[in-house]
Amino acid sequence: MNLTRISKLSKLIGIRNSKQKAGLPPGTLIYTGNKLTNKSDIDLISYNEKDIKEYTGKDINNVLPHTDENRVNWLNIDGLHNIDLIESVGGHFNLHPLLLEDILNPDQRPKTDDYENHLFFTLKTLHSIQEEENDEGSVVNYEQISFVLGKHYLLSFQEKEGDLFDGLRERLRQDNHSSATRARKKGADYLFYRLIDTVVDSYYIVLEQVGEKIEELEDEVYLEPSNDTLKQIQRLKKELIFLRKSVYPLRESLSKVIKGEYPLIAPDTITFFSDVYDHTIHVIETIETYRDLTASLMDMYMTSISNKMNEVMKVLTIIATIFIPLTFIAGIYGMNFDNMPELHLKYGYFYTWGLMIAIFIAMIIYFKRKDWI
Amino acid sequence: MNLTRISKLSKLIGIRNSKQKAGLPPGTLIYTGNKLTNKSDIDLISYNEKDIKEYTGKDINNVLPHTDENRVNWLNIDGLHNIDLIESVGGHFNLHPLLLEDILNPDQRPKTDDYENHLFFTLKTLHSIQEEENDEGSVVNYEQISFVLGKHYLLSFQEKEGDLFDGLRERLRQDNHSSATRARKKGADYLFYRLIDTVVDSYYIVLEQVGEKIEELEDEVYLEPSNDTLKQIQRLKKELIFLRKSVYPLRESLSKVIKGEYPLIAPDTITFFSDVYDHTIHVIETIETYRDLTASLMDMYMTSISNKMNEVMKVLTIIATIFIPLTFIAGIYGMNFDNMPELHLKYGYFYTWGLMIAIFIAMIIYFKRKDWI
Amino acid sequence: MNLTRISKLSKLIGIRNSKQKAGLPPGTLIYTGNKLTNKSDIDLISYNEKDIKEYTGKDINNVLPHTDENRVNWLNIDGLHNIDLIESVGGHFNLHPLLLEDILNPDQRPKTDDYENHLFFTLKTLHSIQEEENDEGSVVNYEQISFVLGKHYLLSFQEKEGDLFDGLRERLRQDNHSSATRARKKGADYLFYRLIDTVVDSYYIVLEQVGEKIEELEDEVYLEPSNDTLKQIQRLKKELIFLRKSVYPLRESLSKVIKGEYPLIAPDTITFFSDVYDHTIHVIETIETYRDLTASLMDMYMTSISNKMNEVMKVLTIIATIFIPLTFIAGIYGMNFDNMPELHLKYGYFYTWGLMIAIFIAMIIYFKRKDWI
Amino acid sequence: MNLTRISKLSKLIGIRNSKQKAGLPPGTLIYTGNKLTNKSDIDLISYNEKDIKEYTGKDINNVLPHTDENRVNWLNIDGLHNIDLIESVGGHFNLHPLLLEDILNPDQRPKTDDYENHLFFTLKTLHSIQEEENDEGSVVNYEQISFVLGKHYLLSFQEKEGDLFDGLRERLRQDNHSSATRARKKGADYLFYRLIDTVVDSYYIVLEQVGEKIEELEDEVYLEPSNDTLKQIQRLKKELIFLRKSVYPLRESLSKVIKGEYPLIAPDTITFFSDVYDHTIHVIETIETYRDLTASLMDMYMTSISNKMNEVMKVLTIIATIFIPLTFIAGIYGMNFDNMPELHLKYGYFYTWGLMIAIFIAMIIYFKRKDWI
Amino acid sequence: MNLTRISKLSKLIGIRNSKQKAGLPPGTLIYTGNKLTNKSDIDLISYNEKDIKEYTGKDINNVLPHTDENRVNWLNIDGLHNIDLIESVGGHFNLHPLLLEDILNPDQRPKTDDYENHLFFTLKTLHSIQEEENDEGSVVNYEQISFVLGKHYLLSFQEKEGDLFDGLRERLRQDNHSSATRARKKGADYLFYRLIDTVVDSYYIVLEQVGEKIEELEDEVYLEPSNDTLKQIQRLKKELIFLRKSVYPLRESLSKVIKGEYPLIAPDTITFFSDVYDHTIHVIETIETYRDLTASLMDMYMTSISNKMNEVMKVLTIIATIFIPLTFIAGIYGMNFDNMPELHLKYGYFYTWGLMIAIFIAMIIYFKRKDWI
Repeated sequence: MNLTRISKLSKLIGIRNSKQKAGLPPGTLIYTGNKLTNKSDIDLISYNEKDIKEYTGKDINNVLPHTDENRVNWLNIDGLHNIDLIESVGGHFNLHPLLLEDILNPDQRPKTDDYENHLFFTLKTLHSIQEEENDEGSVVNYEQISFVLGKHYLLSFQEKEGDLFDGLRERLRQDNHSSATRARKKGADYLFYRLIDTVVDSYYIVLEQVGEKIEELEDEVYLEPSNDTLKQIQRLKKELIFLRKSVYPLRESLSKVIKGEYPLIAPDTITFFSDVYDHTIHVIETIETYRDLTASLMDMYMTSISNKMNEVMKVLTIIATIFIPLTFIAGIYGMNFDNMPELHLKYGYFYTWGLMIAIFIAMIIYFKRKDWI
Repeated sequence: MNLTRISKLSKLIGIRNSKQKAGLPPGTLIYTGNKLTNKSDIDLISYNEKDIKEYTGKDINNVLPHTDENRVNWLNIDGLHNIDLIESVGGHFNLHPLLLEDILNPDQRPKTDDYENHLFFTLKTLHSIQEEENDEGSVVNYEQISFVLGKHYLLSFQEKEGDLFDGLRERLRQDNHSSATRARKKGADYLFYRLIDTVVDSYYIVLEQVGEKIEELEDEVYLEPSNDTLKQIQRLKKELIFLRKSVYPLRESLSKVIKGEYPLIAPDTITFFSDVYDHTIHVIETIETYRDLTASLMDMYMTSISNKMNEVMKVLTIIATIFIPLTFIAGIYGMNFDNMPELHLKYGYFYTWGLMIAIFIAMIIYFKRKDWI
Repeated sequence: MNLTRISKLSKLIGIRNSKQKAGLPPGTLIYTGNKLTNKSDIDLISYNEKDIKEYTGKDINNVLPHTDENRVNWLNIDGLHNIDLIESVGGHFNLHPLLLEDILNPDQRPKTDDYENHLFFTLKTLHSIQEEENDEGSVVNYEQISFVLGKHYLLSFQEKEGDLFDGLRERLRQDNHSSATRARKKGADYLFYRLIDTVVDSYYIVLEQVGEKIEELEDEVYLEPSNDTLKQIQRLKKELIFLRKSVYPLRESLSKVIKGEYPLIAPDTITFFSDVYDHTIHVIETIETYRDLTASLMDMYMTSISNKMNEVMKVLTIIATIFIPLTFIAGIYGMNFDNMPELHLKYGYFYTWGLMIAIFIAMIIYFKRKDWI
Repeated sequence: MNLTRISKLSKLIGIRNSKQKAGLPPGTLIYTGNKLTNKSDIDLISYNEKDIKEYTGKDINNVLPHTDENRVNWLNIDGLHNIDLIESVGGHFNLHPLLLEDILNPDQRPKTDDYENHLFFTLKTLHSIQEEENDEGSVVNYEQISFVLGKHYLLSFQEKEGDLFDGLRERLRQDNHSSATRARKKGADYLFYRLIDTVVDSYYIVLEQVGEKIEELEDEVYLEPSNDTLKQIQRLKKELIFLRKSVYPLRESLSKVIKGEYPLIAPDTITFFSDVYDHTIHVIETIETYRDLTASLMDMYMTSISNKMNEVMKVLTIIATIFIPLTFIAGIYGMNFDNMPELHLKYGYFYTWGLMIAIFIAMIIYFKRKDWI
Repeated sequence: MNLTRISKLSKLIGIRNSKQKAGLPPGTLIYTGNKLTNKSDIDLISYNEKDIKEYTGKDINNVLPHTDENRVNWLNIDGLHNIDLIESVGGHFNLHPLLLEDILNPDQRPKTDDYENHLFFTLKTLHSIQEEENDEGSVVNYEQISFVLGKHYLLSFQEKEGDLFDGLRERLRQDNHSSATRARKKGADYLFYRLIDTVVDSYYIVLEQVGEKIEELEDEVYLEPSNDTLKQIQRLKKELIFLRKSVYPLRESLSKVIKGEYPLIAPDTITFFSDVYDHTIHVIETIETYRDLTASLMDMYMTSISNKMNEVMKVLTIIATIFIPLTFIAGIYGMNFDNMPELHLKYGYFYTWGLMIAIFIAMIIYFKRKDWI
């Protein structure tokens, strides 16, 4: 991933390809994301209660004819750079050009659009990247997933191939398994729910890592705050801004679903969606809590900097305050006046030492009283 | 409780078992909390105006047959790790799998779900832990309580056995007591109100302790702010974030109840619920007030740090400003030039002392004028 | 008032007696406030357009029979510690047990509850305490007043006897006075309005004193900010938090009244209530403004601390920067090398003085340029 | 204006006369403002499309008979201290006592009240005072204007005579002028719009001055922030709090007008009012923007103070760090030990100088590297 | 552009010409913007599915007769200083005087007004100015565009000629191009959508530049924060305040469009508008994110200033703390007492050196332990 740092922010913000796109008429299909995979496969899982069939291929024409209106057809496309493929899928299912444009724009804000015969739904998946791989940029990687839900089909579009849905596929295949059977008894809307649920569940993994990072930084701030701690707090703060931005609009989309605004989602399935909705609220509240905690971290850091400065100043003040007066006394008796009676006292030198030690002890007592040492 | 610190935050945030759970189909029952008790008892209190019967046992089949549709049946389950028990209760009362899943997930956000024949309600109980027991983590312990209210029954599910409801049980038993009689005249919805009321009342105990802590810290910040004070303020701040998160959603749940959205709760009982609702608002406002006060504490701490730095700097400045010029004068007459007329004056040494004392006094006056000493 | 400081916060927050109360069944009447008066008097003013009668006594049975359904009956109870009295009033007017409980809990949030035949309304009166009396705690004293408005009666419950309503009583008595006449022509709802209006008017007195305090502190912060100034700003900040908490819910209560939700309040009287509502909004906005101003004060204080530190540092820097190099020069010629040609120059000493004075002047010019002196 | 400073804040806040008023029955007419003019004139402009007549006088009985139900009658009263005049106007137009009370209370929050036959509308006019006149207090002067709109009349009440409406009067008089003709063709509601529009337009003058002040302070903060800059920023901040408080409620009043809630304002005129509404939103947004900018100014000031402290510290550090070690070396060779071989080297003194110069240069290089000089 | 700096803020805020305008009757047409172009051209594009005709001219009478009710007529006016031209266009299309006034006031807040036969819509275009051109002021230039949409026509008014719509014009001309054909098949409302879409797309260019600036400053703050960095952060902060102010109200306007409030916009076209609405939300959220990031930058800057001060203080403390005690020792043996036994020890001088070196090493170890060096 040899993106410059600047494009990273633009990507996170989701404005990366505005220049590339500006001026083109709406509905012009170009993929504005990065080509994240060379694959551009299409695979179809078609099932009903009795059996399940799978078709995979690069050629849309080998796969699409297998869709069957009496079964649930789940068509998954990995890789969005193959415009022709997207276009022919769009043609086959009669999708609005703006919908296709939204699929191809990976910087789409999570949203849901109701077209007459199908429902468009787009959201982000979050993957956390290993820390070794990136030393400056984002810890979290955002990919866009788009769904088109029809009466008997569900289309899913992913930027790159992922194994997020593999568990679900496996469960659909194992007919004997009680839970899987239940899933295959139900319609495309239930499959749709299961996919959304899987995506939202994956948010928790990222949240857990962010939580661990916060606790790590908390310890660091207490024990040995460094300049690097500050950078990490700031990076975390930024990460949470982007996380919030990615997840927040999902709340609205799901709220529309559970209010029953979309006839394609049966009342039965809405009960399940309200469960996903609860999880989304939980995720959003957790992000807000993390933002509060990160703000606290920053406060703590600032205070610990002040405290360290205080300690430095105290050391300086104690040393200087003790020795400057003593040095002055030594300076006095280093003067070369002809007539300095003390110099000729037998024990003048020792008296002077006595005076100095007395001052020293007085100072120490004073600082002890002030609780400085 | 040998949890590592990291899992503490995850637990508080309520995302502790995401990994464990991710990928399982919805409705799969696993207990995602910590096993907080070895007991897994079920006890049934069945009463009407005339008498009250109690049944306790480990075996659900010994207890469930005693439920009687003409009486109020309160079934309480302590300990959620016994999945089979939960499942058979669920089967007996015909509970939705997602509902059972919510009962078993102790990180559920407080919420209420309306199923056709029963109402699901979940909230948090707060216990404050003695300070000796924990030196780093949370002062407040959060447990989840779930209720299922049916026409003639109330199920309550607790993570561990607690004595929170013992007072209420006792009152139900004492038939002669006027108030208890009243309670037994009423239906399961009134019992439900009494339990919620007991939980919300217990919040005040925790709030009172937080309030005392705030006042303690306030004194500490004024008198002798230390690094430890800072840590305690931060911990309090964090505690209040979690308290808020635990109590806030309850407002919404209760607001639905008092709007009369649930037919299982009779209009008569709603009057009582609006009282609980008022208490909940009060609790939430108090938490907000505490957050404001804690923010003030932090401000105070920062200011007191600045003030202390100021004082340190003043001492340094006073000492250095007085003695540096005097030392310079002493340095002058320590020079070894052949021709230094002052050195040979008879009272040169004493004149010099005079000069030094004059400078000293002038400095003292200057500092007094500046209000530094 | 020998309360410990801790209980003061609890009292202000309104959670003082949770422990005392927790576990009791709802509707159990105990007075959870402090006994603020020994009196526990009941007085009745019964009037119509033509005449006005007054009855006072300690025994409810001597007073209650005088209420007359064809007149407006204002029954005022001072002191809430006499549970029996409250209970018999409640019995006579057929009040709900929860309503009586709310009357007896002086930490009730301002609210209004509509019962079938009467309206319950509770709010706070504010009294500012003389500064001499308290040196640490709150400047404002909060008392609760509860009203029960019925068709032909108004009950008012006060924690301690107060002279707040004396002016109104006097006006009711003076039949000749035009305005009083008007009042006696109207029903219990108008009397209710007059009492609420009197309470809200009294808020302005407290606000005015807070405003004066803010201006006083503003001057102090500019002229001679001390540690005590800081404490006072913080105390004010806290006071405003409590003031807001006490007045804010009143807005909602009154808003319900002016929306005409309560049939007991005639449309005519609602016009008057919308006037009280405006005043309440005004009070709330003023509190918010005061909070903004207090936050500014804190900013100012912090800045003035920084400025003072700056000044201290400048004095140190100027003195040290001037004399350290000069002392170095003196040190040079204090060395005892055999071969130091300058020492033997005839005017070496004077040249050295010249050099030192030149450095001194250069430094002064430098500092002047930097605008430090 | 020999008000003390304390009363200024009270006046701005609008609580100045609470004491004076508290306890009086509602509807008692006393003027709670300051007597800002000795005049107490009443002038009437009565017009229709064809002609315009003007009547001025101190005696209401000379003016009121000229109102004509077939024309638009604009009655303007300057000076509110003449209670009798207000009262007789109120009697003539049958105004509610609370309405009259609101007119006489110049601390009224902007609001609108719908009475059966007339509409009451009150808002603030802003005048900016020349800076010379006031060195401490407010830069902006707030006066209250009240309007009563009836079917064929408009009453306007001002605290002191002003020339704000002179332009409009002139235009009404000049029959030939196309725009004025248009105005005279329309009803009292259009005249009402024109007056409100004139008041809102005048807000821009004040906003522009505040904007200039902000830019002036911005320059000052960058170039030479002083203690006075801080005071001015704080004063501005306070001014904006009051400005917001004065203008914000107007939004609500006008919003009610453009929603068509008041039958006295014809649909045609509402189009014009929605223009004034837009301006009011603009004014409010500008005030918010100014508040943001002023908060930025404060940040800038704080930072510039820190930067200046930094610079002071750097000078001290550089001088002290260079000369303290050199002075130490000089001190070494000022010691009087019998046996100090270096002292007797022929070029010992010069070697020492060499060492000192070397240290000096090393230090300078170090500081240059650190970018301190 | 020889505006003074003060007028820049006034311009951005949109209150620049209040003085010039105040007092004029509403509907008086004067152009309150700056004359940004000498051109004042009118050009008409009239098209239907089959062909497209273009007419350009300075004289409105040569152009207007070409509008054809059976085609879509797009009339574009560049330059608003020619009042007569605007007035005659207004007369021809029967526009309300307030609408013309809004067109001529370039400080209009984005808004939409529904007149009976046409819809008025005004918004801002953003152009980013090259940094060389301005060293102090705004990086973004705001121009106002107004649209009037009728049944068969669309009027667009721009402050100066721009090439923003050139791409669209070109596409309309190229009949063969599939997308362009589509556009020409549709009505004026679709053309209106395309223009708004083009304007909103152009916002992304500006956002991208702001994003780059933020990243640049982020690097600067980490690596070498200077006074100039601070100025740039503040400028950015201000810029974002103005950006927000310019874009935010557009949300409301578009929201009204997609709610179908305007009959002139066909349901078909509303689908497209909801796409623009999504983009606008995205732009607004991005601006909010940028504001958060800029606030973080400011925090970072403050912290880095504190850190630098800390470093300076440490250097001073280390040097002073090491050498002040050593200098004291040297001072001791520089005293001239007759009886100082150490002075006469054979290796007294060397012992002293030993002591000094020991102290030096102890100090170094102490500082190492404290992690200061």
